[in-house]
Amino acid sequence: MNDGWRIDFELMRLIFWSSKRETKRHLWPSVAPPLLTIDGIGTRPPGCWKMLTVAVCMAFLACLQAQELQGHVSIILLGATGDLAKKYLWQGLFQLYLDEVGKGYSFSFHGAALTSTKQGQELIAKVLESLSCPEDMEPGRCAELKGQFQRLSQYRHLKTNEDYMALSKDIEAQLQHEGLREAGRIFYFSVPPFAYADIARSINSSCRPGPGAWLRVVLEKPFGHDYVSAQQLATELGSFFQEEEMYRVDHYLGKQAVAQILPFRDQNRKALDGLWNRHHVERVEIIMKETVDAEGRTSFYEEYGVIRDVLQNHLTEVLTLVAMELPYNISSSKAVLQHKLQAFQALRGLQKGSAVLGQYQAYSRQVRREQQKPDSFYSLTPTFAGILVHVDNLRWEGVPFILMSGKALDERVGYIRILFRNQAYCAQNEKRWVVDQSQCLPRQIIFYIGHGELGSPAVLVSRNLFRPSLPSKSWKEVEGRPGLHLFGRPISDYYAYSPVREQDAYSVLISHIFHGRKDSFITTENLLASWVFWTPLLDSLAHEVPRLYPGGAENGYLLDFEFSGAQLRFCQQQLEQLVPGPGSAPMPSNFQVLTAKYRESPLISAWPEELISKLADDIEATAVRAVRRFGEFHLALSGGSSPVPLLEQLATGHFGFPWAQTHLWLVDERCVPLWDPESNFQGLQAHLLRYIRVPYYNIHPMPVHLHQRLCAEEDQGAQMYASEISALVTNSSFDLVLLGMGTDGHTASLFPQSPAGLDGTQPVVLTRSPYKPHQRMSLSLPLINRARKVAVLVMGRVKREITMLVSRAGHEPKKWPISGVLPSSGQLVWYMDYEAFLG
Amino acid sequence: MNDGWRIDFELMRLIFWSSKRETKRHLWPSVAPPLLTIDGIGTRPPGCWKMLTVAVCMAFLACLQAQELQGHVSIILLGATGDLAKKYLWQGLFQLYLDEVGKGYSFSFHGAALTSTKQGQELIAKVLESLSCPEDMEPGRCAELKGQFQRLSQYRHLKTNEDYMALSKDIEAQLQHEGLREAGRIFYFSVPPFAYADIARSINSSCRPGPGAWLRVVLEKPFGHDYVSAQQLATELGSFFQEEEMYRVDHYLGKQAVAQILPFRDQNRKALDGLWNRHHVERVEIIMKETVDAEGRTSFYEEYGVIRDVLQNHLTEVLTLVAMELPYNISSSKAVLQHKLQAFQALRGLQKGSAVLGQYQAYSRQVRREQQKPDSFYSLTPTFAGILVHVDNLRWEGVPFILMSGKALDERVGYIRILFRNQAYCAQNEKRWVVDQSQCLPRQIIFYIGHGELGSPAVLVSRNLFRPSLPSKSWKEVEGRPGLHLFGRPISDYYAYSPVREQDAYSVLISHIFHGRKDSFITTENLLASWVFWTPLLDSLAHEVPRLYPGGAENGYLLDFEFSGAQLRFCQQQLEQLVPGPGSAPMPSNFQVLTAKYRESPLISAWPEELISKLADDIEATAVRAVRRFGEFHLALSGGSSPVPLLEQLATGHFGFPWAQTHLWLVDERCVPLWDPESNFQGLQAHLLRYIRVPYYNIHPMPVHLHQRLCAEEDQGAQMYASEISALVTNSSFDLVLLGMGTDGHTASLFPQSPAGLDGTQPVVLTRSPYKPHQRMSLSLPLINRARKVAVLVMGRVKREITMLVSRAGHEPKKWPISGVLPSSGQLVWYMDYEAFLG
Repeated sequence: MNDGWRIDFELMRLIFWSSKRETKRHLWPSVAPPLLTIDGIGTRPPGCWKMLTVAVCMAFLACLQAQELQGHVSIILLGATGDLAKKYLWQGLFQLYLDEVGKGYSFSFHGAALTSTKQGQELIAKVLESLSCPEDMEPGRCAELKGQFQRLSQYRHLKTNEDYMALSKDIEAQLQHEGLREAGRIFYFSVPPFAYADIARSINSSCRPGPGAWLRVVLEKPFGHDYVSAQQLATELGSFFQEEEMYRVDHYLGKQAVAQILPFRDQNRKALDGLWNRHHVERVEIIMKETVDAEGRTSFYEEYGVIRDVLQNHLTEVLTLVAMELPYNISSSKAVLQHKLQAFQALRGLQKGSAVLGQYQAYSRQVRREQQKPDSFYSLTPTFAGILVHVDNLRWEGVPFILMSGKALDERVGYIRILFRNQAYCAQNEKRWVVDQSQCLPRQIIFYIGHGELGSPAVLVSRNLFRPSLPSKSWKEVEGRPGLHLFGRPISDYYAYSPVREQDAYSVLISHIFHGRKDSFITTENLLASWVFWTPLLDSLAHEVPRLYPGGAENGYLLDFEFSGAQLRFCQQQLEQLVPGPGSAPMPSNFQVLTAKYRESPLISAWPEELISKLADDIEATAVRAVRRFGEFHLALSGGSSPVPLLEQLATGHFGFPWAQTHLWLVDERCVPLWDPESNFQGLQAHLLRYIRVPYYNIHPMPVHLHQRLCAEEDQGAQMYASEISALVTNSSFDLVLLGMGTDGHTASLFPQSPAGLDGTQPVVLTRSPYKPHQRMSLSLPLINRARKVAVLVMGRVKREITMLVSRAGHEPKKWPISGVLPSSGQLVWYMDYEAFLG
Repeated sequence: MNDGWRIDFELMRLIFWSSKRETKRHLWPSVAPPLLTIDGIGTRPPGCWKMLTVAVCMAFLACLQAQELQGHVSIILLGATGDLAKKYLWQGLFQLYLDEVGKGYSFSFHGAALTSTKQGQELIAKVLESLSCPEDMEPGRCAELKGQFQRLSQYRHLKTNEDYMALSKDIEAQLQHEGLREAGRIFYFSVPPFAYADIARSINSSCRPGPGAWLRVVLEKPFGHDYVSAQQLATELGSFFQEEEMYRVDHYLGKQAVAQILPFRDQNRKALDGLWNRHHVERVEIIMKETVDAEGRTSFYEEYGVIRDVLQNHLTEVLTLVAMELPYNISSSKAVLQHKLQAFQALRGLQKGSAVLGQYQAYSRQVRREQQKPDSFYSLTPTFAGILVHVDNLRWEGVPFILMSGKALDERVGYIRILFRNQAYCAQNEKRWVVDQSQCLPRQIIFYIGHGELGSPAVLVSRNLFRPSLPSKSWKEVEGRPGLHLFGRPISDYYAYSPVREQDAYSVLISHIFHGRKDSFITTENLLASWVFWTPLLDSLAHEVPRLYPGGAENGYLLDFEFSGAQLRFCQQQLEQLVPGPGSAPMPSNFQVLTAKYRESPLISAWPEELISKLADDIEATAVRAVRRFGEFHLALSGGSSPVPLLEQLATGHFGFPWAQTHLWLVDERCVPLWDPESNFQGLQAHLLRYIRVPYYNIHPMPVHLHQRLCAEEDQGAQMYASEISALVTNSSFDLVLLGMGTDGHTASLFPQSPAGLDGTQPVVLTRSPYKPHQRMSLSLPLINRARKVAVLVMGRVKREITMLVSRAGHEPKKWPISGVLPSSGQLVWYMDYEAFLG
């Protein structure tokens, strides 16, 4: 019955109009000339026409009943005279009205601000006058609807608690007067965050809707400055509102291309199922480039910088939409949020080396001017950042997610680009390749957020990938744009779709708020998860000097960056332009590795990076020699933080390391289960074992956890380990033992003033540490001293004092256990960085 | 003293000429007009001139002395009238003469064949007449040298042992007559392999050079047809010759671009050091495309096919040159060979799925015609193959090495292409990228073997990579070739070098034979390593039907192939064109997974691939449910070969599998060390653990190896395992136990007629298998039956009979242990492929 039949329900509404009270009239748009068109009616038999009339009328009655039930919605826009409101929010509210009018709700719009009533009314009137209808709306109808919206909208001064009480009373009075049931209230906070608390308190105490009606408060970023401040803000808001009442806006989620990511993944499940993973995706780029700079906004920008302004929120949200496991039902907000949180949990922690930072040259000057800073002031705030994110799960392991944003760049454009790996070999000469057939040409999916050369939002799918399915009502194929190249290929190489009707992000989001679609908003958990992810990086970068760039098309290759492993760096390795200061600090490469003596044994000293690199080389050389001579290599490793970069260096930089012939032993262990984060073995697992292929049976954790208890004497774990060593390690002489040195002179888990393990015949002992967890298992000094080689790694300024004390000490293992390390026939080598050795 | 001085030593030679016996004259080329030029002499002081004269004379004396010591070399070309000899070898020998004449050796060249002396002499004379000098040689000098070479060359009939004895005597007579010391003899076998043994025997018994002189025999492929035949041939030859006497030719190693691989890697160590590994290389392509087909050669080709003809030798040699660890000293043949062998050891074994095969359409017709086969004959010999090779070491893990060769393709070209990963993000719009600066444009190194669009050998390095160092004497920059595109980029994007003088591969190799450079040849170990690698694949492909292709430019996308994981397949998944037969076999996709009952429990049956896929899905679903309910998943796995594809499916296809919460247990184990290839645990390690991230402490191998002995009762391994289970697995109920069924009805390691583990209270038992290794450890039936779910996987036609028998059996665990599997409160599901179930 659908085919060729169109019914304008406006007519039906009119039929019943006279039965409604005239006062409600303004809740309804009057309509253009009453109209009922039923196409193709001539071809239908008369019985059908009758049936249709009945059906239409019944449908309309049901609709009317629904309308009766929906009730009245009051929308209070706080900061109604501000920039955001003027530019986007009023238009968004008008769009909501246009979309929803006649679907069963009645509305009133309250523009609130601190301005006086008269001034506010004038301002609002001006804004309302400038509202525009969709292009395809007939002008007369537009004028009528706009007039209705203006009549429903009013300004009010809203400051004190009393003002909020008055507002609430007015709403209630209106409801009673018009005989309306209250559906809910929306408070849109378009105000600076410092004002949040007072407003929230007033709303909560004095302006909540009546029973059975909902409250929705809409919050705009920034949502804090780091994890702690975000949590404080969240706690504060949480004392006034329920989680489900809060709608934190990230307007990127309202961008049409971004909002299409999940539906696209859902509607193309079959094609994407095998593709959307590390076996097929080469990289993901999440990019927002701006040409504008921060001029005029530096007071805000100086506090935030590009990472807080763009990456922590917009680009991170996009990242989770791409990376998350796709819920079975993407219209379930709960499922979407849950999967998002799982994606956050899979993100590998960022380190200083995960980022490159830039700042456009004019920025510091702008800050000085706008904030009256002295000429000597130079800002460290980044206006450009490139970040490398890894998602550590089976789907995405190893796939680089590149996040980049900056101001004063060469173009304004935003996109998400999923580039697939070329896994084909094409047997014919490349001249014979044709785009929609050759699997050797680039394959990519791009969610084009907007601007750029294309100039509109779009979804692009390479023609050699698959023909995507998009909702044909809202997305149409892009018409020919000859000569346009995007991402290395002519536009004709893509299936390209753009929205039938371009919609502003705020309009989209306001509609979602109205419909309670929480998946388009940032829950508290989501927000805090994002800050948990970003805060350590922000802290570590706080004093980093960004690379200066000229801005615009002049940036050349200055901002290109590249990654190797988890490290990001600028491609052009020129010396940084430092903030003027008392001469630049010495660079590591200015120094050679220093060789000397310490406690009469060889000492190797260098900057940390070179030191680790040298030690890793030495370990590999020792391993290769041992395997050549004996067929195997027995390496005993200490826990702690110093060896972490060493382990990672060994794991990722040493291709010739004979891991298959290497046995890994522990020097000491804390009496916790092996899977405890405190366990030394766990450190080994996280920083070494997961990267390499040591056979399972060559790995020898200490048996601190036997019979479901920890280091019980009667379980004889120490003896077990000793006999395992004695069985597998010739003469119980490890090929290499790696030790550290504590600030109290301890080594392994042998502590001062504690006799266990310092001498005697027990090769492995239980000991007691002054630090938690107190119980330990450790190789004894006599066993350590049987090793062919012992390396002691000492790093950091904090070790300076003990390094000095021990340098003067004799053989005093009870005072300084480290002083008892002296291999009987093996070699001892000290590896100290300059900070530990030179202070 | 070098600068600006050139001396023609020919002059010096002439000065001393008169003192030599005239009979030796033909050993020396006479020279063009005597010449001594000393550039820049005018600027030198007179004392210097004197000094120079003395130095030159002394140097010449030393040279002459060396010459005296080098002695005489006899080169015997067997099969001197054959195609290869006529086309390449005589020219190569002439080139050797041109290169070496006057450097201290004297030569004689014996062209041998079975032809009568007279006919042979005529043929040889014709060949010798057609020899050509290098382009840059003065024609008069060319004629003279050619004349000398012709005089030094003679034909002889060589067949019987007596012929060889006669040859040897003639050589000795000549040596004596001319007062020459013998340096060595080279026998070049340009004959079919069936003739090798007789010739080798005759040389060994009757034609070895005198004491102190070397013997070199040069062998041409094919060197066998598979591992066994290659080994037989090698053993046979080994009974006549020492390893160091044999020079197996792979003429690819004489191609200039191929021969440049190691020197290039060596001379660009610094630039390549960080690049030549899995972190930077995206793929390696090793390609040899031909336009010719096998017409006229089908009698050979039909026996060999493209893999034996091209891949097993040429492309494999190239592969090792690219993949091997670079020896410190690349001029050490021993080191090179040793590193090559290590590279072979790192190659992952090929499986049927590692290859795609094709055959040009006309091939079968050509075979029928040339070999008088009936019209019903269709050949299965592949004329096209694409192979995916993985090198399983830390340097190359995960990098696809693509080997491809074929006849009747669209172009003749050979190349090795190393494509680097794009690890950069370029901040400016792509329009602003410039080739030698942008890291976002493709970066590749190509060893262009020859032909193709470039038309000559070349080494190409992308300009955004580094400026390579090549020996300037032998390689020069390629001159401008506007419009030429190679590998997606204009030639101007590369640093491009080609040889100063193009040399034929055989000339290069003959020179290497003469200089004893064994690294350009295939040692026995090398040859056998290659056959070890290729033979299993060749066996598995023996009955594979190749895809037919039309040939030439008409192939379209028919031969394009792609990989996912270790699997290779044609991009176009059209139905294969089968050899005409009684209708095509049913395809797996024609069938649905069948669900029924077996022994009153659910039975799931399908083709193997679907069955494994279904089982893997079911296991994942069970795991996800268990983790959701209990926070962990306890999975007990059986050994054997059936689960291998299952494990690999789980490892590589199931991104949502909660491995971090999964505990892996063994159902049974052989009493061998865990690292023994027979160990079930080792199978788990190889096919599952190496791919996924199960925490170390969630992996529970059976303790069959305690106190350095295997399954000793007194070590109580079974009891230990039982108590570990009891401690970690709630109620000792595994979430899922995966079992198999043996052809004798055994399951786990519970065997018929053996009571242990069939009932009783011991959860884990030691048992005895009728198969080796006899000693086993196994979960008992009562423990298995406590599981929440038991899945029994049965695959293959060989299981048909037992499947039938067991279907009729009652509860008879002593006869059929599998019949005792009946979970007390859990679920039992049978997974059988059609072959096991339907036979």
